[in-house]
Amino acid sequence: MNSDEFRKAAHSAVDEIIDYCDTVQDRRVVSNVEPGYLRKLLPSGPPEDGEQWADIQKDIESKIMPGLTHWQSPNFMAFFPSNVTYPSMLGELYSAAFSAPAFNWLCSPVVTELETVVLDWLARILHLPDCFLSEGEGGGVIQGSASEAIATVMVAARERYLTAACEKLEGKEKEDKRNQIMGRLVALGSEQSHSSTAKAAIIAGVRYRSIPCSLEDDLALTGDQFQATLEQCASEGLEPFYLTTTLGTTATCAIDRFNKIKAVKQNNQSFQNIWIHVDAAYAGAALVCEEYAHLAKDFAAFDSFDMNMHKWLLTNFDASCLFVRTRKDLTSALSITPSYLRNPFSDNGLVTDYRDWQIPLGRRFRALKIWFVLRTYGINGLKAHIRKHIMLGEKFAGWVRQREDLFRILTPPAFALTVFTLALPTHEGSQLPNGDTETKVNECLGTSNILPRTSTDQMERANALTKSVYESINAAGEIFLTSSVVNGVYAIRVVSANEKTDEEHLRKAFDILVKTTEEVLRKQ
Amino acid sequence: MNSDEFRKAAHSAVDEIIDYCDTVQDRRVVSNVEPGYLRKLLPSGPPEDGEQWADIQKDIESKIMPGLTHWQSPNFMAFFPSNVTYPSMLGELYSAAFSAPAFNWLCSPVVTELETVVLDWLARILHLPDCFLSEGEGGGVIQGSASEAIATVMVAARERYLTAACEKLEGKEKEDKRNQIMGRLVALGSEQSHSSTAKAAIIAGVRYRSIPCSLEDDLALTGDQFQATLEQCASEGLEPFYLTTTLGTTATCAIDRFNKIKAVKQNNQSFQNIWIHVDAAYAGAALVCEEYAHLAKDFAAFDSFDMNMHKWLLTNFDASCLFVRTRKDLTSALSITPSYLRNPFSDNGLVTDYRDWQIPLGRRFRALKIWFVLRTYGINGLKAHIRKHIMLGEKFAGWVRQREDLFRILTPPAFALTVFTLALPTHEGSQLPNGDTETKVNECLGTSNILPRTSTDQMERANALTKSVYESINAAGEIFLTSSVVNGVYAIRVVSANEKTDEEHLRKAFDILVKTTEEVLRKQ
Repeated sequence: MNSDEFRKAAHSAVDEIIDYCDTVQDRRVVSNVEPGYLRKLLPSGPPEDGEQWADIQKDIESKIMPGLTHWQSPNFMAFFPSNVTYPSMLGELYSAAFSAPAFNWLCSPVVTELETVVLDWLARILHLPDCFLSEGEGGGVIQGSASEAIATVMVAARERYLTAACEKLEGKEKEDKRNQIMGRLVALGSEQSHSSTAKAAIIAGVRYRSIPCSLEDDLALTGDQFQATLEQCASEGLEPFYLTTTLGTTATCAIDRFNKIKAVKQNNQSFQNIWIHVDAAYAGAALVCEEYAHLAKDFAAFDSFDMNMHKWLLTNFDASCLFVRTRKDLTSALSITPSYLRNPFSDNGLVTDYRDWQIPLGRRFRALKIWFVLRTYGINGLKAHIRKHIMLGEKFAGWVRQREDLFRILTPPAFALTVFTLALPTHEGSQLPNGDTETKVNECLGTSNILPRTSTDQMERANALTKSVYESINAAGEIFLTSSVVNGVYAIRVVSANEKTDEEHLRKAFDILVKTTEEVLRKQ
Repeated sequence: MNSDEFRKAAHSAVDEIIDYCDTVQDRRVVSNVEPGYLRKLLPSGPPEDGEQWADIQKDIESKIMPGLTHWQSPNFMAFFPSNVTYPSMLGELYSAAFSAPAFNWLCSPVVTELETVVLDWLARILHLPDCFLSEGEGGGVIQGSASEAIATVMVAARERYLTAACEKLEGKEKEDKRNQIMGRLVALGSEQSHSSTAKAAIIAGVRYRSIPCSLEDDLALTGDQFQATLEQCASEGLEPFYLTTTLGTTATCAIDRFNKIKAVKQNNQSFQNIWIHVDAAYAGAALVCEEYAHLAKDFAAFDSFDMNMHKWLLTNFDASCLFVRTRKDLTSALSITPSYLRNPFSDNGLVTDYRDWQIPLGRRFRALKIWFVLRTYGINGLKAHIRKHIMLGEKFAGWVRQREDLFRILTPPAFALTVFTLALPTHEGSQLPNGDTETKVNECLGTSNILPRTSTDQMERANALTKSVYESINAAGEIFLTSSVVNGVYAIRVVSANEKTDEEHLRKAFDILVKTTEEVLRKQ
């Protein structure tokens, strides 16, 4: 493909992408291909001789599109959103053109320097404490995903802990002590923290223990539960060295009790060296708005913070922004410098070599798309984007509340996410011996917004109904939702936070929910 | 940025990229900005209100370009190449438009299915044994980098080893045994294997030991050295569980003795469970040519193989293609499935969930660019690309050999890479007491192509001269080279394998080398 052919191909690709973006809401949001559909459509190998772009491009609509689930559709209300915008795409295009595995500063100084600058920008607009800025001892680094960020900081936490524990030893004695402690190390997360903490523990070769959370506490990790787990671990001879705490859990967008967690650490001399990581993968984006800034006020007591611009901040996957309070914690654990990676700038400590802040060696020029997005939207544009979705989410939760005959909200709606279950029909409740189900159903619509304690039978029945509604809706494919099982409760999650989402899309989703629920209940 | 604005912006970006690609050879190949240059050019934060694309775009030339090292320039002869081509850029653009953190099949079936198909295509055209195809028990997965692939397989290797060792135990006994063995585990690589194996060992929490390689063996890992290290480890009570073996080492493109390594494993009952990984990050691309296919014949005895299409196979970073013989080894180690990631397709084992084949959860749609590249070039186009560089590399090595008054080749030229040092001026040798330096200098140009054993003084002197030439050339910035220290020898590496590289570029590089060497020697 020469330059002229590329110009033509790229113009055609841009046209197709614009058309895709303009009409994505008209496509079935979740793919309904059968497993293995694609292999049947493709030849058994690449062609002997090259093909023309026009022939390749036409396969996109016919072969690729049927297998796409359209995360950009305003009808996509599953998982968390995966925003992409036009300036972000332009960033990827330039980044590809400037392709390099830019593992150190000299590989392409701007890849490092723009990353440091835009992550400082981001830290400030997210209202993070100054300790996470590169100007002091901290700084930011772009990771591929929040899970990769967790694996990275857990390894750094493990090395920091082991180094401190074996500080005064040498040789064989040191090695033995290290191995002994390694076998006792335990990484902690709440029951509601993302599974990537458990996976990171596998990667790092340490134990994992999850800390219980209750519906009474809105599924947040509390200081008491953290403290109790630390004590329990100590009583078993285990050494907790790491905790993932979450701003916006996956299931319900719960916010852990940061001030209490901080107090537990500060009040326990023996747990001073525990690394506390804040996983704000989705909800961290909301910190751009002043009304959420207070959530970050305790973060200076923690070691690291990560949020994904690729979820809710208008930048395509991947752009996971990890900030650490002490960058030396990362580089001490992860730096290895063979001769072919040495250069005077790095040797003299004049520059940042981000390869020592991450698991892989090479890295893409991801700062470019972040720079384009921050400049195209401006701080006010980012705030408007977040506030629009918060407002829409509240409207949606309001509609759910109004239909207490059909639905119960599981936890307080947060960050545009509403999590709810089906309400059991009142006639079923009235058939129960104690006759108080109806009261309990209504309790959940009050101040606490918490599901009442129902009997196991009732819970199973409600779970089955909720699951049935959920499955019917996803099978129809007009909208795409995710379900979640939280403390035994099967719930439906609705979050639509794409750039294209408007009230009409959430209203349509709500109407589908009501209609499907009524159908499911009618069939009982 | 609305659709019309994007069309205009994208056309302008495409024009700028084409212009960049067409004239990249005219830019200074390696950036000469001072550390910290960019922060001075940028404001202290993003704008309050959004900016227009035209204002953003003009900063690319004025602020970004000065800090870029141009890996696509035919004057880039450092590290290994980082190919990018137009169809690959189109792949990135579509991938951004379809943005999703496609962690499981249902997230977007085509992201998984196209990946499986194109990696099967690739395995076949690379002449890999059938055991690495998805049709059997193996299969391919795209990783971000060869280093990430090594960390991934090392964790899988560790878990496979520990699981087998603790197979018959339960509860506390199992836990104790596991911890005991964990403290004894050692990952192996040769002295010449990439530093990412040592880093992966840190990540996985195990020891690392490197196996010596000698210039007499062309810096390849031999069966004897492997065997000796296994025995040495065993005698120390350590348990080797993993080996990185390399096709095309970073320093000199050495090829480990695969058949001998295979024999060592097969002949040692106690080392059957060692995971052997083939790191073919750069040179693996050459396997598309029949004349290199024989290098892959022993790979069926190994557990995994990784090559980077983003180095030498026309696809932009990142596209590291990892193949495993037994995919269950990866998924057994890395699979974690919480409720919000469950779906009937995955639960029934009908589909591949690539999140269980890698460290991060989310993943980009990288198969698209590989598909575009394989189709645009065709098998013959890929072969022609590789053969052209092999031929150019041989020409270059020939020129180096012709100037035995100035240069000595360190190891046999391989995969378009030539590694050489300065020859000491003969008058210096004649000043030495034993008077035989000249003979030794000439030895290296004979069959063995191996540097003679010189005195430490001579080596230091040659190293200093070579370093001086290397630094002068990179400071001038007409071409960009990398140096390497191999078994105490300071050497210059020249490899230019970009799509735009032609004989004229290598000739220019050679002329610069000769001129600079003559200047450096004149100053002595």
